[in-house]
Amino acid sequence: MNKNVAVIGGDARYLELITQLQRVTTSIIAVGFDTLAKGFVHATHIKFPALPVETMDVVILPITGVDSKGYVETVFSDQSIQLTKDWFQRLPSHALVITGMANAHLQQMAKDTNTSLVPLLDRNDVAIYNSIPTAEGALLMAMEHTDYTIHSSRIIVVGFGRVGDTVANKFSALGAHVSVCAKDVSDLARITERGYVSIPLEQLPQHTPTCDILINTVPAKVIQKDSMRFLPAHSMIIDLASHPGGTDFIYAKQRGIKAYLAKSLPGIVAPKTAGKILADVILHMLKD
Amino acid sequence: MNKNVAVIGGDARYLELITQLQRVTTSIIAVGFDTLAKGFVHATHIKFPALPVETMDVVILPITGVDSKGYVETVFSDQSIQLTKDWFQRLPSHALVITGMANAHLQQMAKDTNTSLVPLLDRNDVAIYNSIPTAEGALLMAMEHTDYTIHSSRIIVVGFGRVGDTVANKFSALGAHVSVCAKDVSDLARITERGYVSIPLEQLPQHTPTCDILINTVPAKVIQKDSMRFLPAHSMIIDLASHPGGTDFIYAKQRGIKAYLAKSLPGIVAPKTAGKILADVILHMLKD
Repeated sequence: MNKNVAVIGGDARYLELITQLQRVTTSIIAVGFDTLAKGFVHATHIKFPALPVETMDVVILPITGVDSKGYVETVFSDQSIQLTKDWFQRLPSHALVITGMANAHLQQMAKDTNTSLVPLLDRNDVAIYNSIPTAEGALLMAMEHTDYTIHSSRIIVVGFGRVGDTVANKFSALGAHVSVCAKDVSDLARITERGYVSIPLEQLPQHTPTCDILINTVPAKVIQKDSMRFLPAHSMIIDLASHPGGTDFIYAKQRGIKAYLAKSLPGIVAPKTAGKILADVILHMLKD
Repeated sequence: MNKNVAVIGGDARYLELITQLQRVTTSIIAVGFDTLAKGFVHATHIKFPALPVETMDVVILPITGVDSKGYVETVFSDQSIQLTKDWFQRLPSHALVITGMANAHLQQMAKDTNTSLVPLLDRNDVAIYNSIPTAEGALLMAMEHTDYTIHSSRIIVVGFGRVGDTVANKFSALGAHVSVCAKDVSDLARITERGYVSIPLEQLPQHTPTCDILINTVPAKVIQKDSMRFLPAHSMIIDLASHPGGTDFIYAKQRGIKAYLAKSLPGIVAPKTAGKILADVILHMLKD
């Protein structure tokens, strides 16, 4: 495959991503990996201002995309990289910009400049694959922060989307007693079929007194005072929903309940697997 | 239950053990917990020389028992505690001495003084219950020391005893590809029935080139040069067999393969559960 690909910023999983991309295309330019030991990333390293934007077929942005001012998060660089509308206009008309997430600012810039933008995390397959390292990360956090086994512990998973489904499955597979809390009646039916205890969302508070680990996957304010008031003192909360999570962390602290907002778990617990997930999808897209 | 119980030394799981014992008997003397914050262990604290040995019904030693000179390992004390034949002779004839493991020295002292000695870890039920936190500890180590998920990784478990059985089950439950290596033909049959790949012990070396995580549970020199020579560079070895393990750690280091001897995993990853396991068995014994 003969495409000019630029990877601009990214975290540990992007090292595996670049390695995988190099198997099929040789002209990869890495921007924002300059603090890594020389030769760690076998790509052409270029400073952001020197990037030949006009020749790019594909641009890959970090999972986090850009911030509200267009800045790109670079883990392996001190460079300040800001994407502007002017920058997007320099891209060839056929260019594809791949990102993890796309906030309003990024979407607007792409729209205004008529640029094709693909937010990978919006893809159903990526979200399902990613839920595997996310769930393993939740297991890791539970093991690290409790003095009891996952086996026999009482878990409530809030939400039965792609992440909630996988998390419930993993904890149950290790012998935990799993309950899942959801709003949708079809979800409650599926939860029951799987052998978990199904809890309608409004009944969550009644079930918390017998909960050891409460895991939220819903990006809305679902873990509030009423759901925390009667949690046992030894319990913990793991919030897997994207920033800022769905937990009232201030109240959790007041009550002395350990509560963690888990950020970018796939990139932390399994960067290699997480990078390969992204690479597989991108390679599939490039072939089409 | 009206018994005089002394707990001499022990680690974090003994805090839960003491808590559980107190539910049924009030006269518990704790020796070797003096560096803990006051009141953390609700028992009568006595220095070792002041212990009224002649009045004891039950003495509980640490999981590790005593060393080759009779010294007891105390995690929460600077006291030097040595058990001697003279000390055993002071115990009442009906007294029961409970330990985790019993080395030759401890067994000899008990025999010479006609003392009833119960090594808990020799019990089949205790070994099976303990295999749960041990296997969770192995999962934790695997997650911490690799950059890929347990899911889809290729695991070889060496040995299909109580620990090997549980470890294979947990890794498989999380979606790993599990092979189990054993000598006994009945074990190989059961391994096949479970859906794992069965590997006769002498064929282990041929299977290592496709192994990501090699987990040993056999307390004999089974993971030697021939089994390590062709392990992939990214692989790791977790040795769950009791000290000194079954791995040639020197060769592993030479080859640059990460290899860890996991010691007392239940007490580290889940002291509360591990303490409860011991308490349940001891309470059951005291009732008889």
